[in-house]
Amino acid sequence: MRVRVSVMLKDGVLDPQGKAIGHALHTLGFGNVGEVRAGRVIELELDEADPARARAQGDEMGRRLLANLVIETFTTEVVG
Amino acid sequence: MRVRVSVMLKDGVLDPQGKAIGHALHTLGFGNVGEVRAGRVIELELDEADPARARAQGDEMGRRLLANLVIETFTTEVVG
Repeated sequence: MRVRVSVMLKDGVLDPQGKAIGHALHTLGFGNVGEVRAGRVIELELDEADPARARAQGDEMGRRLLANLVIETFTTEVVG
Repeated sequence: MRVRVSVMLKDGVLDPQGKAIGHALHTLGFGNVGEVRAGRVIELELDEADPARARAQGDEMGRRLLANLVIETFTTEVVG
């Protein structure tokens, strides 16, 4: 199965990359852009046929390696 | 509306970050991990009530700023 783990900074943690992107979009004329948050996405091919187990493994990998839970949160989706 | 633009390297473009993550996961004991691809995700709050227009604007921002279309692809989702 294919699993996608999305890692974002927690609300309240300063996100300079998101701020820079928002500023650049305003400069390009996208005046209706409000808050922008930047994060990472990791797509993993797992040798695991059961979607629930694949998702649980994605969660474990998020906790143990992919996210820094002090400042980040993550979500896991099975994408196929 | 809230829009999420996910930017990934194109298939065939070397992804050293994904390779490093895959190697680290194997070292941690996740032996069933196959290919790993790393990318970016940008979540944007748009002052736009129409989901179709929000999505179209996400696509335009992807093309004009968020992705390097020479080596990357992106997908846009309306998330709320």
